[in-house]
Amino acid sequence: MRRWNGWGEESTEVALPAHGQGFLAERVGPGQVLVDASLDQALARVPATRLPAHPLISLDPEERLRHARGQSLPDWLAMRSGEFGIFPDGVAFPESAEHIRQLLDWARQQDAVVIPYGGGTSVAGHINPQAGDRPVLTVSLARMNRLLDIDEDSLIATFGPGANGPQVESQLRARGYTLGHFPQSWELSTLGGWVASRSSGQQSLRYGRIEQLFAGGRVETFAGTLEIPCFPASAAGPDLREMVMGSEGRFGIISEVKVRISRLAEQERFYSVFMPDWQQALQGIRTLAQARVPLSMLRLSNAIETRTQLALAGHPRQIAWLEKYLALRGAGDGKCMLTFGVTGSGGQNAASLKQAKRLLKGFGGVFTGTRLGKKWAENRFRFPYLRHGLWSAGYAVDTLETATDWSNVDSLLNKVEASLREELAAEGERVHVFTHLSHVYGEGSSIYTTYVFRPGASYQQAMSRWQRLKQAASRTIAENRGTISHQHGVGRDHAPYLVAEKGELGLAALQALSVHFDPERRLAPGVLLED
Amino acid sequence: MRRWNGWGEESTEVALPAHGQGFLAERVGPGQVLVDASLDQALARVPATRLPAHPLISLDPEERLRHARGQSLPDWLAMRSGEFGIFPDGVAFPESAEHIRQLLDWARQQDAVVIPYGGGTSVAGHINPQAGDRPVLTVSLARMNRLLDIDEDSLIATFGPGANGPQVESQLRARGYTLGHFPQSWELSTLGGWVASRSSGQQSLRYGRIEQLFAGGRVETFAGTLEIPCFPASAAGPDLREMVMGSEGRFGIISEVKVRISRLAEQERFYSVFMPDWQQALQGIRTLAQARVPLSMLRLSNAIETRTQLALAGHPRQIAWLEKYLALRGAGDGKCMLTFGVTGSGGQNAASLKQAKRLLKGFGGVFTGTRLGKKWAENRFRFPYLRHGLWSAGYAVDTLETATDWSNVDSLLNKVEASLREELAAEGERVHVFTHLSHVYGEGSSIYTTYVFRPGASYQQAMSRWQRLKQAASRTIAENRGTISHQHGVGRDHAPYLVAEKGELGLAALQALSVHFDPERRLAPGVLLED
Repeated sequence: MRRWNGWGEESTEVALPAHGQGFLAERVGPGQVLVDASLDQALARVPATRLPAHPLISLDPEERLRHARGQSLPDWLAMRSGEFGIFPDGVAFPESAEHIRQLLDWARQQDAVVIPYGGGTSVAGHINPQAGDRPVLTVSLARMNRLLDIDEDSLIATFGPGANGPQVESQLRARGYTLGHFPQSWELSTLGGWVASRSSGQQSLRYGRIEQLFAGGRVETFAGTLEIPCFPASAAGPDLREMVMGSEGRFGIISEVKVRISRLAEQERFYSVFMPDWQQALQGIRTLAQARVPLSMLRLSNAIETRTQLALAGHPRQIAWLEKYLALRGAGDGKCMLTFGVTGSGGQNAASLKQAKRLLKGFGGVFTGTRLGKKWAENRFRFPYLRHGLWSAGYAVDTLETATDWSNVDSLLNKVEASLREELAAEGERVHVFTHLSHVYGEGSSIYTTYVFRPGASYQQAMSRWQRLKQAASRTIAENRGTISHQHGVGRDHAPYLVAEKGELGLAALQALSVHFDPERRLAPGVLLED
Repeated sequence: MRRWNGWGEESTEVALPAHGQGFLAERVGPGQVLVDASLDQALARVPATRLPAHPLISLDPEERLRHARGQSLPDWLAMRSGEFGIFPDGVAFPESAEHIRQLLDWARQQDAVVIPYGGGTSVAGHINPQAGDRPVLTVSLARMNRLLDIDEDSLIATFGPGANGPQVESQLRARGYTLGHFPQSWELSTLGGWVASRSSGQQSLRYGRIEQLFAGGRVETFAGTLEIPCFPASAAGPDLREMVMGSEGRFGIISEVKVRISRLAEQERFYSVFMPDWQQALQGIRTLAQARVPLSMLRLSNAIETRTQLALAGHPRQIAWLEKYLALRGAGDGKCMLTFGVTGSGGQNAASLKQAKRLLKGFGGVFTGTRLGKKWAENRFRFPYLRHGLWSAGYAVDTLETATDWSNVDSLLNKVEASLREELAAEGERVHVFTHLSHVYGEGSSIYTTYVFRPGASYQQAMSRWQRLKQAASRTIAENRGTISHQHGVGRDHAPYLVAEKGELGLAALQALSVHFDPERRLAPGVLLED
């Protein structure tokens, strides 16, 4: 069963290894364990619903609780403390576009707010109901999760919007295809959610971001149904797909998604290379990306992340041997771990591997084969579970991310890390901060930063620490040419910073679209655009 | 000097070879030559301007005439007959964003309509002034054509919007870079125009369409300046670049363009392969595209276009030898000519070539080396000049284009060709129709159809024939899952068909944006959206 107050299945547990605990204690101090609320305690606080009964809607308190929060750190603190705050008044489970249209009509009659809900994995407050006079109806697309059609010539698959990562891939794999979209939230997040929030997967280097994968579909809006036909490309005016992607539920509910799929590749391999220092590593991956070497993924940890990963990996003796070997080859204390993948035919992969190896060796890279890459691939969706292990050991962990042009990557990364590292110094707290680059482009790169801190003596203190950290980092991003999100979206948490990149005029244009599609402003109010 | 009534420089002439004339006479009948008007005759019809003098604006009749029409066939007929119809009342030549803002303010004071003008190469009626009470101010960006900055780490170049193809490439090449955007209109069309009309270049397979190249910039609108910052990618809401691309001047005037550039490639080669028949050819290029073989261009002519090209090439004896050789290798009467390019390092190109050859051989392709490919590259921008040669010989020629998914390419292509071929049958006229696919994607392909017909006894008759042909083909496209334009844009000529793909709701969303940016509807009225 899925956890009601954390990530993923209850059966999956990822503990912090003993060695890792020592590593963190040295860096931020001994853990501070807070007591979690029980489900019963949390349920006792669910208020009576303000909605009447409806055959498609559950008013059950547990269902309402399970759809009240996403997976941001504030959501985590709310769930762990049992202080959820606001709950949806009901959770609808439509099974068709027609159901969605009925629910929209009904919501209008009830003067209700409507929150579209995919996998509930938002880390930016997309799906949290807000206090207000209007009742809140959360619309879960979970039952619309089927593969409806494949056009095998055009490699277009049609899905219900609620299909999550495993549902998408297992239905495609059975026919010999893959979507190739693997965000870290893949086990729970959904196709409709990826589209609505402009998601990016770990292998976007080959398969593209959702922008390249989303081919068309249908959106149910309060102003009618928006049908988006599939074309390989078009010059016929602004692209309607681009209005839907990133709209975060503000314009309508996605009821059907057509995506560009690929035949399963003959071969896929992940390799790791240790770069001697950060500057060489940075130049190496920029050169790789700009030379268009056809890799399928590329991820570069900075020196602190490399050290942290090796420490948290367990197996301290094996790691010590590895480090000795690397140091002998020139990758010592400042070393940075780089993982890359090749996906394609055997011949294509051999050619790509050869290019990548030659190029990285020119920057001092020490190639260590597929062993660590294989480990990465096995554990690629396990990181979100680690929050549980850290929490039990008395540490809070959060991540944030941005993207910027190459000329600014190093500078922005340093500023973001510094803003987090220093923010709690006044209260004598240290924050352990580390970063990797996981999506590289010719123009620049994403920057994905993880920070570990102690929650303090209470949930209130934990929340206030998080707020300070998040605000410091978000301001740093907005003031230094970073986008407020490369892959998580805007939601509520990033909405105040959006004006820095869209401008007043650009934001007003998005407001104009919101008014067009949703004249009574019922859909996800406060998300994306601060109303 | 640039021609006032046709394509390109007066010094460049492309005549129809004698052999080609016979070929066409056989297919559509002997040519019908119409008498062209002189520049003086045309100038005599320019009416008095309705605008007062302004230091940035030319009211000169010849300047107004030279900015009155694009390069569509109706434009051609208007220019050749000297019946231009409506002229702009003045042509402004701003040199800065500040100038553009002044001109917008002034246009508001004068209650004038404003038409943004790049290279004047529209083939869909984008820049033609319409009859109306408000005076018309055409704003040419020709003087804003400089490379302003290069970020060499991020490979971002900043240009004035009026830089045309040669200005873009020569300024970049001097520093070791290329944009790699080569639409057929490249000699005259501009960066700002490419963005505004969602242009695609011949090597989009490597460099991407303008959607992938346009990184950010600035747009001057009646509601203020829209600044679009550069990010390699972002999940922060809908992408403002996507509002600008395809807006065709309806939302504002682009005053600065930032583009993603590439280092000049070590090597570039174009090869030709003859496929034994259309079905094998089609499967071959679909497989190539879906296998992600890293080519830089791919163009496949159908059997009629292949025959026509070989006939119009001149050198009938050499062609006869080539055809004999090809027939012996299995590419006889139904053969289809395929040209592809590889661009990159020597090693990358060798790997790509190997993959492409092996794959195409599997579909019966006969590889003929680089000779014809080289010819293609030399003549890649000459096709628009051929209209002159054909016209002098008594033939009108026009092209139209669409894109659709692979499962529909063959069917749509046949329907479009049939609609053109049969449209004039009732009046006993034949139309020579042929097609190539020039932009291939995993999902589908563009379809680019050329049609040659006799103009009849008068310009009126020529225009009415064109209208019937264009309408027949456009309806066929709109009714059969094609986009109304893959690379030329909507303008006025395609606007009536846009609803078929955007839907009423989608069109209304674009109208909402137009009202947002241009509340008094001064910008290019009737373009993109029928007002």
